[in-house]
Amino acid sequence: MKDDQRFMALALEQARQAYQAGEVPIGAVLTIRGRVIAQDHNRTEELEDPTAHAEILCLSAATAFLRSKYLRSATLYVTLEPCPMCAGALAWAQIGRLVYAAPDPERGFTRYQPGLLHPRTRWEQGPFAEEALALLQHFFRTKRRSTSRN
Amino acid sequence: MKDDQRFMALALEQARQAYQAGEVPIGAVLTIRGRVIAQDHNRTEELEDPTAHAEILCLSAATAFLRSKYLRSATLYVTLEPCPMCAGALAWAQIGRLVYAAPDPERGFTRYQPGLLHPRTRWEQGPFAEEALALLQHFFRTKRRSTSRN
Repeated sequence: MKDDQRFMALALEQARQAYQAGEVPIGAVLTIRGRVIAQDHNRTEELEDPTAHAEILCLSAATAFLRSKYLRSATLYVTLEPCPMCAGALAWAQIGRLVYAAPDPERGFTRYQPGLLHPRTRWEQGPFAEEALALLQHFFRTKRRSTSRN
Repeated sequence: MKDDQRFMALALEQARQAYQAGEVPIGAVLTIRGRVIAQDHNRTEELEDPTAHAEILCLSAATAFLRSKYLRSATLYVTLEPCPMCAGALAWAQIGRLVYAAPDPERGFTRYQPGLLHPRTRWEQGPFAEEALALLQHFFRTKRRSTSRN
């Protein structure tokens, strides 16, 4: 879908902004009927908050903006397969659709049983997996060279 | 443990405050070496944010206060077994210990495989399970009588 390309490209741009800011480069965009409602990137370092993932920030911004706890008609685009925390948050919001770029075999929500998303949420892997993964790999390679921590 | 009784009683007091405010009555207290660092209750209605669970609010407050993403020496007391979102957040924070009052067979983190907490997190069911559950049951009974929504 053309929209999926466009919105995932925006999410990737958010991931690049995270990279520039020294954050783990993951970006997300939340849309409703082709309109961007929220976009953000990982800010766990800036906010010193382990819950400040791109998905959670988009979700909190969108629910505050829409004054609704539920996002049944929304689609979330994110550059990496969400972790269980984010999948659990998307389940509470009953998000309509989830599209992620790169799979995360180590921490991704699809590893877990029973399923972590809401039963009515449609989800799929979408475009730009290679670009999203390359950005993450480059970030962690550079980080390992520059510091002995982690 | 005497501390567990004391801190879970505080968490239960938070749950009662949530009840009074019309929120799902769940409370949490975060401590480090016998000192309360954060305490809060569910605020999903007030903030219109499905991520505003007692555990997440305590965790974000504590990491901001301590200026650290990690809470390896902290204990979280919560009146209901955490959901996958909250367990995932506690995993990112690498919380030292988790004590919950009432089990949640429907949405609790212990239902899921592989485990959702950090491998070094110790966890157990603690005191006041009956009190915590009675408060929740009373809340949902009253809510069902007063509204046709949900």
